[in-house]
Amino acid sequence: MSDPRLRDADPEDDAFVPARALVADIEAAIDAGDGPALNGLLDPLHGADVADLIEQLTPQRRGRLLRLYSGEIDAEILSEIDESIREEVIEALPREVVAEAVREMDTDDVVDLVEDLDAPEREEILSALDAEDRVAVEQSLTWPEYSAGRLMQSEVVTAPEHWTVGETIDFLRREEWLPDQFYHVVLIDPRRRPIGYVTLGRLLSSPRATPLRDLTEDSFRSIRATAEEADVAYLFNQYHLISAPVVDEADRLVGVITIDDAMSVLDEEHEEDILLLAGVGDESSISDTVVETARQRVPWLGANVLTALLAAGVIAFFEDSIASLVALAVLMPIVASLGGNAATQTLTVVVRGLATKSLTPSNVWRIVRRETIVGLMNGAMFGAVMAVVAYVWFRDAELSGVIAAAMIINLTVAAVGGILVPLALDRMGQDPALASPTFVTMLTDVIGFMAFLGLATWILL
Amino acid sequence: MSDPRLRDADPEDDAFVPARALVADIEAAIDAGDGPALNGLLDPLHGADVADLIEQLTPQRRGRLLRLYSGEIDAEILSEIDESIREEVIEALPREVVAEAVREMDTDDVVDLVEDLDAPEREEILSALDAEDRVAVEQSLTWPEYSAGRLMQSEVVTAPEHWTVGETIDFLRREEWLPDQFYHVVLIDPRRRPIGYVTLGRLLSSPRATPLRDLTEDSFRSIRATAEEADVAYLFNQYHLISAPVVDEADRLVGVITIDDAMSVLDEEHEEDILLLAGVGDESSISDTVVETARQRVPWLGANVLTALLAAGVIAFFEDSIASLVALAVLMPIVASLGGNAATQTLTVVVRGLATKSLTPSNVWRIVRRETIVGLMNGAMFGAVMAVVAYVWFRDAELSGVIAAAMIINLTVAAVGGILVPLALDRMGQDPALASPTFVTMLTDVIGFMAFLGLATWILL
Repeated sequence: MSDPRLRDADPEDDAFVPARALVADIEAAIDAGDGPALNGLLDPLHGADVADLIEQLTPQRRGRLLRLYSGEIDAEILSEIDESIREEVIEALPREVVAEAVREMDTDDVVDLVEDLDAPEREEILSALDAEDRVAVEQSLTWPEYSAGRLMQSEVVTAPEHWTVGETIDFLRREEWLPDQFYHVVLIDPRRRPIGYVTLGRLLSSPRATPLRDLTEDSFRSIRATAEEADVAYLFNQYHLISAPVVDEADRLVGVITIDDAMSVLDEEHEEDILLLAGVGDESSISDTVVETARQRVPWLGANVLTALLAAGVIAFFEDSIASLVALAVLMPIVASLGGNAATQTLTVVVRGLATKSLTPSNVWRIVRRETIVGLMNGAMFGAVMAVVAYVWFRDAELSGVIAAAMIINLTVAAVGGILVPLALDRMGQDPALASPTFVTMLTDVIGFMAFLGLATWILL
Repeated sequence: MSDPRLRDADPEDDAFVPARALVADIEAAIDAGDGPALNGLLDPLHGADVADLIEQLTPQRRGRLLRLYSGEIDAEILSEIDESIREEVIEALPREVVAEAVREMDTDDVVDLVEDLDAPEREEILSALDAEDRVAVEQSLTWPEYSAGRLMQSEVVTAPEHWTVGETIDFLRREEWLPDQFYHVVLIDPRRRPIGYVTLGRLLSSPRATPLRDLTEDSFRSIRATAEEADVAYLFNQYHLISAPVVDEADRLVGVITIDDAMSVLDEEHEEDILLLAGVGDESSISDTVVETARQRVPWLGANVLTALLAAGVIAFFEDSIASLVALAVLMPIVASLGGNAATQTLTVVVRGLATKSLTPSNVWRIVRRETIVGLMNGAMFGAVMAVVAYVWFRDAELSGVIAAAMIINLTVAAVGGILVPLALDRMGQDPALASPTFVTMLTDVIGFMAFLGLATWILL
């Protein structure tokens, strides 16, 4: 039963990706319209892997697979389908297949599935649920997007605070509706407010007469349904939580969030940061078509054209200087380029510091000072390097001095801009990863060209 | 008991960062050498928050805090201390404090603590453990760095495959050594090979006479101790695992990995990717001093100087062209800049696709084609925009044509380079996030200047 893919670790081979031969067989079965062969190939796979495969096919093959394999698309596969193709997949499947899959899902997976759908489609899916689950899903949908209320499942195992271990175990043996996975029994008071929880391990290892109240964990903390999902992920990671009860504004228990959902959120938040810092839309996915991909990248490239034109304007202002000393045109991109890279370094550290909450009001000025000094130091160092290179190349001591000074100025500006711009955006309630790179690169381009060409014009010409 | 920080969500305020006033009080207590006041302030905090605070103090205050508060530094705090200051903290603490804390830790936390220490220091810490834990830690340390074997804890709750629910519960009630957190009972055969697991929830909700064998989970999979920790994190995230048994080369059970550890690894892997893509050393931390920070950033800036010099060499080759048409110097950075940004976009998508295993041998050529077409399309679009801008600015139709052609060439090169460079690095067993940005930026700078200045020289002059 050991995962065969973890057994024969060949460093040349990525064991976690479906073998090329298997994918080729699956594609051949799709192209041949051979349903039984397709079933034989897909059935041994985990739902998450089937979902990945569906995502990685071309849209044409995906459509055909969904027709051929529709009878086997269950809750496990459907809840793993990436957001980017979810609507496409749901539309391609027969209604009764979707209905059957949705009935099998935990309520948090249903919420995740329907929250981005239009009202009529959402209604159609919800109508497949029994009344109780439907109410749970609809209540979850009343909480804001990206909130704990959307992330939670409503199935919670609770016990009155006065129960003993024995009473609780007897209760669990009697109940039929227990969720697939649960890790704690939540103690509630008569008003349904959670007041602690007991791990199942402790429940199992304690004598039957022990009151639950004596077994509660210190780690217990409940989460407001309105809390942002990014903060929920932070809490789970920071305090090693496994599950946490979710409460409404009156502190009443409304659901529970488990660590696997928090892990998915953490994963998505990171992904978003990386993609935003690179100027790629945060919804980009490997299944996007050419047109979707091009469209996502245009806004940032467009912003980049504007900032590059601003920098070109600065250069144009010094056209006469360049005409009389072409070495300036040769060296000026170096000043801008190093400034841009130094700014990216600082910027990324700051964006991550904010995301991981390690950059706080208490240490922010120390970090501003550190980055500024580092900018000055690296500016001085690489300024000196470039001064030597420029001298060897052009034999002009004044030009050497000018490039050194421009490097010091630009790397210092890069450091200060790289920290203050994301901090300012964060203070204004904006995502610092979104707009910072464009702003800061503009700054280092403009200042880089201005400092270098300005000093050169003033001193050399 | 609800987390007060999640209750009154003021969007202006980051509820997850210690209040500035609290940090100020703590700093004042440290400066005054007031141990009792410090205890009063720190005791209500979670160990993870105390560890963060210690990390965020200046090195001087950190040293003083460790002296004043040393009696209270326990396993919880010590295991949360960031790697970047771990050695400093251990050295500052009295031996017996470290020894006491280590004795309280699970073996995986001890491994994490000692694995980067020098042999004598490691030996000193291990000598505090009792014989059994010491053997477990030393065995864990025989597995490669960043492997599942280093991540696992050796305390596993097991049951023979023929046991019933009742026998298992009785066994759990008898045992005293149970780990703090466990979620499954692992079924083992007589050779100690794991053959399945039962969740505690199922154990609790089943009649005593039920054989464990009837309750095992489909999700069961064991992990080789030699598997890389990044792959372990992927497995947990992909299959929503909560815990997974770890086996040696003979398939014998040697430990267990739980999801909270997998979540930490996922977090670190992401962080590393983001920092590497930005050219910041992957060990960078908010507690780094000025000198450490400057030192981490120098290698990438140094590489950037070399690539920028190469680009400058290209420009120098066309000095005469620039001297006779200065507009070239004005426009050339735009071509290079857009190329660099387009390359960063593609590069990031590819690096992430490799990390999330959504870019596979089966779809790689489709993605290469998609990116190339997107590069051509965006090149054509922004080439057209720049042609218009250049014409309005310089009234030179040929110059307009040249910049349009250069943009198409450079954005296509950016796309192709942005995908092939990280793929090639990955194929060679290198981390694609590490070297790709430098390579690809060099490519777009050199090709950008060469295409624009070369075409201009050929057509215009």
